[in-house]
Amino acid sequence: MSKTIKIGIIGAGRIGKLHAENISYNVPGVEIKTIADVFADKISDWALGLGVKNVVKDYHEILNDPEIDAVLICSSTNTHAQISVEAAEAGKHIFCEKPVDLSIDKIKKAIDAVEKAGVKFQVGFNRRFDHNFKRVRDLVLEGKIGQPHIVKITSRDPAPPPAEYVKVSGGIFLDMTIHDFDMARYLSGSEVEEVYVQAAVLVDPAIGEAGDVDTAIITLKFENGAIGVIDNSRKAAYGYDQRVEVFGSKGSAAASNDTPTNTVLSTEEGVYSDKPLYFFLERYKNSFIDEMKDFFSAIINDKATPVTAIDGLKPVLIGLAAKKSLAEGRPVKLSEIAE
Amino acid sequence: MSKTIKIGIIGAGRIGKLHAENISYNVPGVEIKTIADVFADKISDWALGLGVKNVVKDYHEILNDPEIDAVLICSSTNTHAQISVEAAEAGKHIFCEKPVDLSIDKIKKAIDAVEKAGVKFQVGFNRRFDHNFKRVRDLVLEGKIGQPHIVKITSRDPAPPPAEYVKVSGGIFLDMTIHDFDMARYLSGSEVEEVYVQAAVLVDPAIGEAGDVDTAIITLKFENGAIGVIDNSRKAAYGYDQRVEVFGSKGSAAASNDTPTNTVLSTEEGVYSDKPLYFFLERYKNSFIDEMKDFFSAIINDKATPVTAIDGLKPVLIGLAAKKSLAEGRPVKLSEIAE
Amino acid sequence: MSKTIKIGIIGAGRIGKLHAENISYNVPGVEIKTIADVFADKISDWALGLGVKNVVKDYHEILNDPEIDAVLICSSTNTHAQISVEAAEAGKHIFCEKPVDLSIDKIKKAIDAVEKAGVKFQVGFNRRFDHNFKRVRDLVLEGKIGQPHIVKITSRDPAPPPAEYVKVSGGIFLDMTIHDFDMARYLSGSEVEEVYVQAAVLVDPAIGEAGDVDTAIITLKFENGAIGVIDNSRKAAYGYDQRVEVFGSKGSAAASNDTPTNTVLSTEEGVYSDKPLYFFLERYKNSFIDEMKDFFSAIINDKATPVTAIDGLKPVLIGLAAKKSLAEGRPVKLSEIAE
Amino acid sequence: MSKTIKIGIIGAGRIGKLHAENISYNVPGVEIKTIADVFADKISDWALGLGVKNVVKDYHEILNDPEIDAVLICSSTNTHAQISVEAAEAGKHIFCEKPVDLSIDKIKKAIDAVEKAGVKFQVGFNRRFDHNFKRVRDLVLEGKIGQPHIVKITSRDPAPPPAEYVKVSGGIFLDMTIHDFDMARYLSGSEVEEVYVQAAVLVDPAIGEAGDVDTAIITLKFENGAIGVIDNSRKAAYGYDQRVEVFGSKGSAAASNDTPTNTVLSTEEGVYSDKPLYFFLERYKNSFIDEMKDFFSAIINDKATPVTAIDGLKPVLIGLAAKKSLAEGRPVKLSEIAE
Repeated sequence: MSKTIKIGIIGAGRIGKLHAENISYNVPGVEIKTIADVFADKISDWALGLGVKNVVKDYHEILNDPEIDAVLICSSTNTHAQISVEAAEAGKHIFCEKPVDLSIDKIKKAIDAVEKAGVKFQVGFNRRFDHNFKRVRDLVLEGKIGQPHIVKITSRDPAPPPAEYVKVSGGIFLDMTIHDFDMARYLSGSEVEEVYVQAAVLVDPAIGEAGDVDTAIITLKFENGAIGVIDNSRKAAYGYDQRVEVFGSKGSAAASNDTPTNTVLSTEEGVYSDKPLYFFLERYKNSFIDEMKDFFSAIINDKATPVTAIDGLKPVLIGLAAKKSLAEGRPVKLSEIAE
Repeated sequence: MSKTIKIGIIGAGRIGKLHAENISYNVPGVEIKTIADVFADKISDWALGLGVKNVVKDYHEILNDPEIDAVLICSSTNTHAQISVEAAEAGKHIFCEKPVDLSIDKIKKAIDAVEKAGVKFQVGFNRRFDHNFKRVRDLVLEGKIGQPHIVKITSRDPAPPPAEYVKVSGGIFLDMTIHDFDMARYLSGSEVEEVYVQAAVLVDPAIGEAGDVDTAIITLKFENGAIGVIDNSRKAAYGYDQRVEVFGSKGSAAASNDTPTNTVLSTEEGVYSDKPLYFFLERYKNSFIDEMKDFFSAIINDKATPVTAIDGLKPVLIGLAAKKSLAEGRPVKLSEIAE
Repeated sequence: MSKTIKIGIIGAGRIGKLHAENISYNVPGVEIKTIADVFADKISDWALGLGVKNVVKDYHEILNDPEIDAVLICSSTNTHAQISVEAAEAGKHIFCEKPVDLSIDKIKKAIDAVEKAGVKFQVGFNRRFDHNFKRVRDLVLEGKIGQPHIVKITSRDPAPPPAEYVKVSGGIFLDMTIHDFDMARYLSGSEVEEVYVQAAVLVDPAIGEAGDVDTAIITLKFENGAIGVIDNSRKAAYGYDQRVEVFGSKGSAAASNDTPTNTVLSTEEGVYSDKPLYFFLERYKNSFIDEMKDFFSAIINDKATPVTAIDGLKPVLIGLAAKKSLAEGRPVKLSEIAE
Repeated sequence: MSKTIKIGIIGAGRIGKLHAENISYNVPGVEIKTIADVFADKISDWALGLGVKNVVKDYHEILNDPEIDAVLICSSTNTHAQISVEAAEAGKHIFCEKPVDLSIDKIKKAIDAVEKAGVKFQVGFNRRFDHNFKRVRDLVLEGKIGQPHIVKITSRDPAPPPAEYVKVSGGIFLDMTIHDFDMARYLSGSEVEEVYVQAAVLVDPAIGEAGDVDTAIITLKFENGAIGVIDNSRKAAYGYDQRVEVFGSKGSAAASNDTPTNTVLSTEEGVYSDKPLYFFLERYKNSFIDEMKDFFSAIINDKATPVTAIDGLKPVLIGLAAKKSLAEGRPVKLSEIAE
């Protein structure tokens, strides 16, 4: 398929804009034909700068356009599942931002629609495309560490979100840890069977007042017998802290933070090096580009996408189990969460 | 007190010998007068090499010797508490290897005897004297990381013990993790309130058959609100893995493994550096010396020892809670463990 | 100046193509109107892929095009100076690949023409834009290391060029070390006064037969009193080795190699990390983009370019002094090289 | 030879005391029978603390004592050669501090006496016993880096000596760099053929007034074709900087500084790690012990010492060539220095 893929982008907030720019500058062979956003007039200048002339309010214009092969669903979370269903029915390939939905039912309906339509579906778990984490996963797959025994993920944000956001976010496990749940599945090559949460409000009392926690340790038990742990904080004073380790029968593979430079300054006061890249836009810059390349490559070569609809469902299940564990102060099996 | 301290060592197995040699070569002002061991005849040559002429079978000869100021109790675990009581009653200062006992009652009796006699008592949690961990603790005390939020400890042995040993060891939590429980208290500056264990037999089925686990993730809740996690394995193929991190409101302090050299070899195949120091004798070499120096310094200067009788009790309580958590598959409060 | 800058690219070999692609994908506001190359027919498809329709054989078509604001001179080294003169006379701003020429006279003529025409002129010493080296330079400028005392540069290629290339390259000092000479000036903030070379043929005898060396240590004396050393090899088995250090009265700032990932694999055999990024296209990827952005920014804002015509001259002078030092086996002052 | 080796120590300044303490605490099977020092009365208390009762003023008492097997010559440099001759004639094995002398003639006379007497002779180039540098040397010997091409040594002191000391020191090359000259021979496995020095007074004008330099880059050419470079400074604000690298046809082996701990503190301000160990007593602590062990092992097992009399001569020759190079501003062949 040498022809250009034509796409529509639904939702042009921060992440929609990021994808649009990445595709324009870094993904040859893909043309953004139309962008739909409820604030269409506010984004038309920006869109024009990327050479996109069609900016519409109603995403149905994208779904109804027979020229458009694929859509990127970057609208608010509560619309993902519904638009996914409609897009599948319209025969469009779908890249959907995470989470697909916070309701298992709705995600399943989207999965059904996608399967029925036979379209590609990829979820925006971009961290799988991070160069460091991908290398850890490759080392695991190559058997370099033997059988995985312990999966460890450190995931800390540089600054907490506003309490207002926290209230509508679904809580830390569905908003922030969901990426780590996906990473745990990706690195272990296995499904999570049981979850236990120990958590606290240590960063900002307003988060607690909004009914959420900001610091957490989440223990995981995998189907393949491995165990795992994620530690989260909404605020690491030194910046975005994103590290993983897989420990197994033959050794360990670990990835740490990237830094702006590798410069070291040594003075009488001490030895200084760079802090981690500040936040996800910096740290995962290339992963956002690579997930796009892989999505379009899956379409062009008619292969499976690297992050499937099931990959969209599972982390939500784990997140709901984590919420239940925190609420009830006990380990919760995923089988307890009504699929 | 400029005079030489005279001591007796009770038990000359691996750890007793280590202490004896460290004192001989590295702790001026202390004279080992007598060593007691049930296999006295087997160790007399070794003892003579250190200039120790009195080697006896019965440790009461040490306790009854009015010239002896202090004893090191390095006999088998099940004798620690009883000998501690007797030594206290004999007015000797006591350095007791860990664990003091596996029974809370017996430990308490030892504590009572020590308090009544007004002698010094130090427990052999040598890792507190490790240069790296001590530095992390100092940074926490200096307020450099602010209020502690998350304490993380990685503790993995290079090779599992024989199943025979496992059977009499009291289990991984009282045999191996007990050091990490002490480290958690040391680094957090707080007491553990609740424990949850997720564990498995992944290294050696014989360990499972002996009724123990070999791989574990232990979640901790501290009284000061912080939370923590320890991950253990009985076998790290690359050697002894001993790392800690304390993460707080202002940042993070982390210590990693020491290596034999810092040499880096770069070839077409890759970039190679040294594995961690192989096991505790190498990694904690200086900590064993420093705990001795601090013990004798406490005696000489009549100060509190750096690891008290209570410090001997608490990790056992946590270990028992961990065992209960594993057995019952739920978080266990320390208050559930009958003190 | 909000209008688009129109440019022509003269020479579409490896480096010309790289600049063309970088500008197309990463430098908004610049339009490549025309590309001139003697093998115009061989590059037209590639050019079309970038949206460039005008591909010509004769670069004068670019110089004669009044719509074109600036040119990139990426043709063979022996044409740089002559085309620079012509481009200056045609009133075009000039980005010229390094070296401007191997003849001091010709470089001076180019400089004269540029000054007379009042056009911008930037030389392609891209390494000044490397994130790591720039950070070292910034630390020096900020006074963090005090007065510079010693400048150290390690610069080793992953594989030697063919002997055929070596013969026409001007020798290692004008072909390879010239970048390091520029880096030495950049990092020290001073001019080189004297050069001494100790060198050998250790990598490939064919390089020796071609009259060149492949391994060298070059000592520098700077006008500000600092001293420096560069070590070069045409073949580092582990990849491209590019490190710098500036040591001064208050400390040291050092930058090392970047790697594809920061992943560490620990096994029974050892601890493995990534080799350096393989060669200059990988290591200096972003520096090529950033030098372009700065060039066009200098034009738009009518500021001095970050690498001036003098910066193009000086390293050639140092390179000629280095050749003389090697030939005569003695330190050579730059004043000996007839400017 | 199971009997204890009896030794005498001649000179109990800083280094003599260090050796005495190391032997007492860390080298079993060696008895310090007598210590000779011109200020005998000032050191007798210290000696007694080590269990050494014989403290004499005249070192001939040691040489005349038939019970004494070996001597450590730790007196002032100008006495080393003479005492070596006398000790050899008295049939004592000799450990002599560096440099043996600053005069080639005197060193040769000592060598002759040693050879004639057939006694062991070891020079105090302790850095060969540093764990890091030894590992680099081993990697070179094992062929891991192939044929050596470039040897790099960084050697910087934390603080300059007093100008008074500088005046009598023989200059930086015979006082400080002499260790690096030995290291260059040790790491390359080859002899130095030619030396070139570029140096300056940048740390302390008083050093210049004393006729010396404090900052230097020394280029070396080895007989095996390799080339090398040493950079020296009398003052590194961040502490003792001691690094080496051997680069060869198959790769590179590099060793860097050791630090008190490996702790890393990450805060909003940056990422901090430890400075290097402060000076040679800290950095080379174990190397001083290991050189003693190897010396006595050579005696016991009647093997060659690891640092021979020739190893004492060669660095002095290189140092004299370096002085000449600096004085005459040109590369100097070792063959120019009258052996």
